[in-house]
Amino acid sequence: MALTLDELNRASPQQAAAMLDGLYEHTPWIAAAALAERPFQSLAHLKHLMAQVLARADKGAQLALIRAHPELAGKAMVAKTLTAESTNEQGKAGLTECTPDEFARIQKLNADYNAKFGFPFILAVRGPRGAGLNKQQIIDTFARRLGNHPDFEQAEALRNIHRIAEIRLADKFGAEPDLGNDVWDWHEKLALHSDPGFAEHGQLTVTYLTDAHRACAAFIVQTMREAGFDDVSIDAVGNVVGRYRADAGVKNPKTLMTGSHYDTVRNGGKYDGRLGTFVPIACVRELHRAGRRLPFDFEVIGFAEEEGQRYKATFLGSGALIGDFNPAWLDQADADGVTMRAAMQHAGLKINDIAKLKRNPRDYLGFIEVHIEQGPVLNELNLPLGIVTSINGSIRFVGELIGQASHAGTTPMDRRRDAACAAAELALYLEERAAKDGDSVGTMGLLNVPNGSINVVPGRCAFSLDLRAPNDAQRDALAADVLAKLQQIAMRRGLAYTLEETLRASAAPSDPAWQQRWERAVQSLGLPLFRMPSGAGHDAMKLHEVMPQAMLFVRGENAGISHNPLESTTNEDMQLAVLAMQRLLDDVAAE
Amino acid sequence: MALTLDELNRASPQQAAAMLDGLYEHTPWIAAAALAERPFQSLAHLKHLMAQVLARADKGAQLALIRAHPELAGKAMVAKTLTAESTNEQGKAGLTECTPDEFARIQKLNADYNAKFGFPFILAVRGPRGAGLNKQQIIDTFARRLGNHPDFEQAEALRNIHRIAEIRLADKFGAEPDLGNDVWDWHEKLALHSDPGFAEHGQLTVTYLTDAHRACAAFIVQTMREAGFDDVSIDAVGNVVGRYRADAGVKNPKTLMTGSHYDTVRNGGKYDGRLGTFVPIACVRELHRAGRRLPFDFEVIGFAEEEGQRYKATFLGSGALIGDFNPAWLDQADADGVTMRAAMQHAGLKINDIAKLKRNPRDYLGFIEVHIEQGPVLNELNLPLGIVTSINGSIRFVGELIGQASHAGTTPMDRRRDAACAAAELALYLEERAAKDGDSVGTMGLLNVPNGSINVVPGRCAFSLDLRAPNDAQRDALAADVLAKLQQIAMRRGLAYTLEETLRASAAPSDPAWQQRWERAVQSLGLPLFRMPSGAGHDAMKLHEVMPQAMLFVRGENAGISHNPLESTTNEDMQLAVLAMQRLLDDVAAE
Repeated sequence: MALTLDELNRASPQQAAAMLDGLYEHTPWIAAAALAERPFQSLAHLKHLMAQVLARADKGAQLALIRAHPELAGKAMVAKTLTAESTNEQGKAGLTECTPDEFARIQKLNADYNAKFGFPFILAVRGPRGAGLNKQQIIDTFARRLGNHPDFEQAEALRNIHRIAEIRLADKFGAEPDLGNDVWDWHEKLALHSDPGFAEHGQLTVTYLTDAHRACAAFIVQTMREAGFDDVSIDAVGNVVGRYRADAGVKNPKTLMTGSHYDTVRNGGKYDGRLGTFVPIACVRELHRAGRRLPFDFEVIGFAEEEGQRYKATFLGSGALIGDFNPAWLDQADADGVTMRAAMQHAGLKINDIAKLKRNPRDYLGFIEVHIEQGPVLNELNLPLGIVTSINGSIRFVGELIGQASHAGTTPMDRRRDAACAAAELALYLEERAAKDGDSVGTMGLLNVPNGSINVVPGRCAFSLDLRAPNDAQRDALAADVLAKLQQIAMRRGLAYTLEETLRASAAPSDPAWQQRWERAVQSLGLPLFRMPSGAGHDAMKLHEVMPQAMLFVRGENAGISHNPLESTTNEDMQLAVLAMQRLLDDVAAE
Repeated sequence: MALTLDELNRASPQQAAAMLDGLYEHTPWIAAAALAERPFQSLAHLKHLMAQVLARADKGAQLALIRAHPELAGKAMVAKTLTAESTNEQGKAGLTECTPDEFARIQKLNADYNAKFGFPFILAVRGPRGAGLNKQQIIDTFARRLGNHPDFEQAEALRNIHRIAEIRLADKFGAEPDLGNDVWDWHEKLALHSDPGFAEHGQLTVTYLTDAHRACAAFIVQTMREAGFDDVSIDAVGNVVGRYRADAGVKNPKTLMTGSHYDTVRNGGKYDGRLGTFVPIACVRELHRAGRRLPFDFEVIGFAEEEGQRYKATFLGSGALIGDFNPAWLDQADADGVTMRAAMQHAGLKINDIAKLKRNPRDYLGFIEVHIEQGPVLNELNLPLGIVTSINGSIRFVGELIGQASHAGTTPMDRRRDAACAAAELALYLEERAAKDGDSVGTMGLLNVPNGSINVVPGRCAFSLDLRAPNDAQRDALAADVLAKLQQIAMRRGLAYTLEETLRASAAPSDPAWQQRWERAVQSLGLPLFRMPSGAGHDAMKLHEVMPQAMLFVRGENAGISHNPLESTTNEDMQLAVLAMQRLLDDVAAE
C-alpha cells in the first residue's frame, strides 16, 4: 500500500522516520530533520525541505552522504550487498547484465573518477514511468562528468542524490507524476522529427518549414485535438493555434494567450520552447476531461519560428501576432537557396494572410509562457520552478584595444601600451560592475590577441561586451559605466580603441498582476517563491509589446545547459509546471 | 669659423646665447636654461642638459615648442618664411622640389596630422654627412606616424626636435661625428648583402652561411684588415676573428674579447649585432692610425650565428668559443632541405676544427659587447648610452584556464566559471607584480578564448607567461608568485588549468669590475650614468659562462623598435659608443 501525505503528517516521529527510510542512502538524518517541520503542504514541499537540510549541512556531512553510495556496477553490486533501492535502480538500467567490455569500461571509469574526486560516481538513472538511461547513456554521462571541476562535480553528485530521493519518494507514495509523464512523452514524440543531416546522427534540429518542422506542427495539432481543444489550425506563418473556448455563458469573453516555439537550434535540446506548448495542452486536457470551461478563451500557440536558424528572422512566429512581420524576409534565401517565400508556398501557407494574424490587444487578458530556464540557477538551488521578473534588455559591442606591440624582454613595465592588460582590466571591471546590480550580467565572450607571440607585448586585443539587465535604465547605466571605464582605461594606458554596437534589445519586465498570479500558483504547491530575470529572449518579449505578460521558468538539469543535446528537465518538474498553470487558470477564473 | 666648446664655456651669457641661437626653432629658453649649468664637459653633455630642461618644462611649453615648427613642405616653405635652418633642412631633403602629386600628398598628410594631433609633423630629415631621408622615406614615415597614439606622437615629435638641435649644434661647432659616420657607412655597406627572396624587396635578411652571409663575412674581414688588425680569419663555424696584438714588450699578454653577431632575423634591422663588431673595429683603426698598442691582445669577433633563423641553433657562433657546439645540429636541415653540415662544407668550413675553437678562459681578461638597446628606454630618456647590469634570466610558460562555458544571458555573475576573467586577473597581477621589482618584466603575449562567442561565458582561455629578471633568484621569486597567484585564482574561481614550462634561461649579471669600466667611460664623455638590465639575450650570455662580461647599450630610434626595418640609431650615438669604448680600452691599459 502506498503512503499518503496525510499519514506522513500525522505519524509519530518514529513512524514518520520509518516511512521515509531509505530515501537518502544510509543517511536517515536528512529526512529526520525535515520531519521536524511538518506538516508538509505537498511532497514537493517535503523534497524542498530535505534539500535545504542538506544544503545547510557542512561539507563533511555532504561528502559522507555521497560516499555512502555504491559504485555503479561496482563491487557492492557484484557482492550483492547493495541496498534494495540500489539493486532495483541498477538492475533496471541493465547494469547487472553488463558485457565483459562494458563492465571493464565502467570499472576503469569508477577508478579514474574515484582517483580524481575521492567519491563514487552517482547518477539518477531512472526516468519517467520507470524507464531511464540505458547502459550506453550511463557510460557517456560518466565519461563526460569525469571532466568536471571537483566543486562542480560534488554539487552534481548531490543533485543526483536528490533526484534519486525524489524517485524513491514517488515510489513510496505511489505518486507517479502522471501529468508530467504525459508532457514528457509528448516531448519524446515531438523529438522524433529532425531535419536531414541531423536526424541520422540522433541530433535534434527543427528549422522553419522543413519536413520535420511540418511534421512537428502536425503532431501538435493532433495532440491539441486529442486533448479537447475546440479550434485547432496552422496559421499563415506556420504557428499551431489551439483555442479552448470560454464557458458559453460568458458574453464576449476575452482571451488568455500562452505558448512557446517548437523550432530548435541546430543540435539543440528537446525542451526549449516546446515545454511552453505542452504544459498548457495538459491543462486543457484536464479541463476537458473534467468537463470544465473557463470564463475566458484559452489560446495555446506553438510558435513556428523563434530561433532564426534557417532564415535570419528570429521571433517570426510571435512577431506575426503583433504585426511585426517584415515582408523583406520573404526574399531571404536559406543555405540551399530556397527563399522563405518558396518555403511558405511549399508548406501551403497563405502569405497574403500574414497581416491578418495581428491580434487586437483589447481582446486579450494577457500572455503567459512556461519555459525551461536555460541557466543554472534553479538547478543549483534545488528549486523546480522560478518566477520571471523581466526578460532582460541587452546591448552588445565588439571592439579592439590598440596599443603598441613591443619586445617582451626589453620594454620595461612602465613603458608599455599593453592592449591585453587593458582588455583584462575591462573584463574584471565588467565582472565587478555587473555583479553589483545583482541581476545584471556582463560578459566578455570574445577575447583575443591577434597574431600574438609569447615574447611580444600585445599591441592589439579584440574583445566583445554582452550586457543585460532586467530593465532598460539599468542596462543603460551598466553600459554607460562600462564604456566610461573603457575610455578611462584607454586614456590612462595611452591606448586607442574601436567599438561597434552590434545589438540593442529592450527589456520586457513582467506585468505585476500576472507575475503575482504565477507567484500564488507556485506557493500553493508548497514551493518557495523564487524570482529571477530571464537572461535569454523569449516569445513573451514580442507579445510584451502589445499586452501584459509574465513567464514561469522550469529547472533544467545538467547545470541548466541549453541549446545542447544535454538540455533536460524531469517529469516531476513538468508535473509541477502543469499544476502551477492549473492553479493560475483557476485563480484567473475566480477573479 | 666653427665654434669651440671652450669658447662656449667662457662666453658671457649673451654671447653664449647668441652662439646657440636657433638650435630649437623660435625657442631660445631651452639653450638659455642649459647655459646656466656651464661649463659643459662635451657637446653631448650640453645636449643632455637641454633635453633635461625640456623634459622638466610643462606640457604647454613642450607643445608650444612643437607648434613653433613649420609644416613639412607647408605654407611657410611656399611663402619663403622658414628659418634659415629649416630652409636648409627641407631643401636638402628635396622638399622644395616636390612634384605636384608629392606636394598634394604631403598637404593631405599635414592636414590629417594636424587634425589628429593639433601640432605639425616634425621629422629630423638629415643623416650622416649631410645625407638623409629622401622624399619617399619622409612620406612613408609621415604616413606611419599618423597612426601613433597622441601621447606617443608628442614624445616622438620632441625626440625629433632634439635630433634636429643635435644636427644644428654639430653644424655650429663643425663637430661632424667622423668615427660615427664611418661606423654608419660600414653598416650601410654590410646591409647591401641580403638573402634571396628578401634582397629583391629591399629587406635585410642574413642567415647562417648563405651567400649573403658569406659576403658579409668577407666585408668584415676586409674592413678589419683595412683598419689595421694583425690577424684576421674566418673560423670553423664562420665567425670573423680579428686580433690586434698587444704591445710587443708585454710578455704573455692576456686577451680582451669583444664582438657581436652579423646574422639577422628575417626582414630585420641593420644594427642588431653588427654595431658590436664595427664599434671596436673603429677603435682598432684609431689605435693603428696613432701607432698605439695596448698591453693586451684585443680580439674582435663578428659572430656568425646568434638569431637561430636558418637552423634552430641560436648562439652557435659565441657558443662554439665556450665548447658549446652540439654535433646533432649538423644534421638539421633548413627549409630547403640543406643540412648544416652541407652548408658548412659548401662554405669551406672545417667541421673537424670546431672543437678547437674553445677558448681557455685563463687567457682572457673578459668579454665586452656593444649592442643597440632593442627597447624604448634610452630613446624615451634622451640618453645615448646605457650600462647593462645584467642580461635577464627568463622563464616561459604556455597554459590554459578551464572553466565552464555557459549562456551569457542566463548565467548569473556569481555562478560563472569564466576562464577569460581568470586569465584577466592573472594578466593584471603579472603586470603589477613584475612592476614591483622595478627591473623585472612579465608579459602575457598570448591570450585567447578559443572559439569564443559574444553570448557565451568563456569556458577556456589560453595564455602565455614570459617572465624575466636580472638574476635567477629574482626571476624565480617572480615566477613563484605568479604561479601561486594562478593557483589561487583557479581555486577561488573553481577553475582547472594546464601549464607547461617552455623555456628557462639563466641570468647573466655583469661583472662588477667590467661594468664599472663602462660606467667610467660613459661618465668621462659628460653623459649621465644610466644602468639597465637587458631584456633580450646576447652573445655575452654565452661568454658569461666562462669569463667576466659587461655590455654597453646604444639608444635605438623609433621607440627602440628592433627585429624590424625601422630599427635605427644615429651617427652621433655611434660616435659616442666608439668614444666610450676608447675610454674603456685606455682605462684597462692604464690599470
